[in-house]
Amino acid sequence: MGKNKKWVYARAFKGEPNSSNFDLVEEDIPALSDGEVLFEALYLSVDPYMRAYVNKLGGKTGFTMFGGQVARVAESRNKDYKVGSYVFGQFGWQLYTVGNPGFTTVFGTNEKPFVLPDFGDLPLSLALGVLGMPGNTAYFGFLEICNPKAGDTVVVSGAAGAVGSLVGQIAKIKGCTVIGIAGTDDKLNWLKNELNFDGAINYKTQNVPAELKKLAPNGVDCYFDNVGGELSSQVIYQMNKYGRISVCGAISSYNDSFTDVPKASIVQIPMVLNELRMEGFVVTRWQTRWMEGITQNLKWITEGKLQYRETVTEGFLKMPEAFIGMLKGETTGKAVVKV
Amino acid sequence: MGKNKKWVYARAFKGEPNSSNFDLVEEDIPALSDGEVLFEALYLSVDPYMRAYVNKLGGKTGFTMFGGQVARVAESRNKDYKVGSYVFGQFGWQLYTVGNPGFTTVFGTNEKPFVLPDFGDLPLSLALGVLGMPGNTAYFGFLEICNPKAGDTVVVSGAAGAVGSLVGQIAKIKGCTVIGIAGTDDKLNWLKNELNFDGAINYKTQNVPAELKKLAPNGVDCYFDNVGGELSSQVIYQMNKYGRISVCGAISSYNDSFTDVPKASIVQIPMVLNELRMEGFVVTRWQTRWMEGITQNLKWITEGKLQYRETVTEGFLKMPEAFIGMLKGETTGKAVVKV
Repeated sequence: MGKNKKWVYARAFKGEPNSSNFDLVEEDIPALSDGEVLFEALYLSVDPYMRAYVNKLGGKTGFTMFGGQVARVAESRNKDYKVGSYVFGQFGWQLYTVGNPGFTTVFGTNEKPFVLPDFGDLPLSLALGVLGMPGNTAYFGFLEICNPKAGDTVVVSGAAGAVGSLVGQIAKIKGCTVIGIAGTDDKLNWLKNELNFDGAINYKTQNVPAELKKLAPNGVDCYFDNVGGELSSQVIYQMNKYGRISVCGAISSYNDSFTDVPKASIVQIPMVLNELRMEGFVVTRWQTRWMEGITQNLKWITEGKLQYRETVTEGFLKMPEAFIGMLKGETTGKAVVKV
Repeated sequence: MGKNKKWVYARAFKGEPNSSNFDLVEEDIPALSDGEVLFEALYLSVDPYMRAYVNKLGGKTGFTMFGGQVARVAESRNKDYKVGSYVFGQFGWQLYTVGNPGFTTVFGTNEKPFVLPDFGDLPLSLALGVLGMPGNTAYFGFLEICNPKAGDTVVVSGAAGAVGSLVGQIAKIKGCTVIGIAGTDDKLNWLKNELNFDGAINYKTQNVPAELKKLAPNGVDCYFDNVGGELSSQVIYQMNKYGRISVCGAISSYNDSFTDVPKASIVQIPMVLNELRMEGFVVTRWQTRWMEGITQNLKWITEGKLQYRETVTEGFLKMPEAFIGMLKGETTGKAVVKV
């Protein structure tokens, strides 16, 4: 048999991740038993949630770093998985995975890889982005929780990220005015000039409350929040009566310990005075409707209504690097690693 | 005609209110025109929201301080209001009010005094408490937003206040485990020994996260929040998957300027990881169902399931004093002023 390579989460993050948190480990690939499948990674995902979710494991280390990937069925002793077909699986940061599908993740959840639908001419890597978890995160997390109406003013933080860039476009499709918040002028230009956002704010160089007041003089109806913290408080203080906040992530604080989190201006005052609703979500709550989101996003892409961008890092050995760069905001759109 | 006395909000609050913020003004009571009614105050309400709502008026001063009162119809040239009947009205801090009902408040809302239902042997002052706005705040704000299920663990902050003490009891009626947070041991004793709360925490003398961990070892499902700020973050960090937070008030920060609010540990991390829902409300959103809440609370009182406590300050001249004391947490249950 051949050799597998995998990245092990070896030493716990302290603040920002760095390459010393991970060990590259090589091991033999075992022979397949009956019912088993050998999956070969083609594209691997690096996502913000990974930084946060290690904290849920209470300091545990020594496991193959978790995450989704697009893989090819390389060998199969399972009739549901034909050799040569493509799947999405929660295989983690490794090149080869032997599965009996399903299997149990480090979080104790049971996962079954699913065969990808036909993407036509589109790249398979989209199964990690607009046609996968981030796409559904944008689709369900925005539409179901923000419940946007045509004419609403929508603010998106992390607006140039894998999820945020889709949320803003979906909001435009729904007839909303969209303002994105991101951290570089290149990202702002992309949002305004290519994705047709109505406005954009650089939170690193501009005064967010003042700019937001200019761009949304009538206040904010929906806020799709990827970042949390003071930036989010600033947006929330400009929301209108009965505004809705969908909390997708809190990347601004993922590098902090859960027992010593950052402080921000309290949200309860505007929550009460303007009767706001804020809801956090994990996209798996819509598991049973998964293909609805994928199908709709695919349709919008083919209709030219939804654009996507990927930042592709070449080489499995660069996984930690791609992950770290994504967390620093160095990527636009979806960050993926091509084997 | 006789003389009216009223308390005018004369000089803007800076931090904690003090008596110099108010001027006592005497004026003639005008004669009634056709359709008008003269209302004579019997009980006046002092509530936490009053501190916050002046901030909504953008620094405006010189108006009769707003607030609800129970009044007697002293004279009437309006067939809907018989002399000697009792009403609840948003008449503000004054002894006599001439109304054409309705009339427009300092907030621009149109208000119409309503004739009180028959309270039986119960005191009329309850129209300012358990059988009025605070009662409905507890009834609708808890049941509609927290959506409690039997067996849920419910935490209430400001638990010995006019609203919190009712929320905890309604939660008990619904079969929940109830933990109250308050600021004196007398209040804790009342909650535990008379209102049958399952546990209580003194936030001034105890370590709230540690005590809460002991009292709610399986986590918190519903949080009814009267205070906001760091205390609320501490509760929110111990909430269970799909927990619900009803934000009724943020008394911990009412004395701060809206442009320089206090900071607290950010809520977005637990909001996302545990998919929490937080909603702020103003009780008037249930205006069309108003009598449903009053009727149910009255029924629970007569059945012995709902207890109330009032802190009654005697004398209209003591209104500022009663208001200031209530904000300092010196009162238990509903704070009212008896003329």
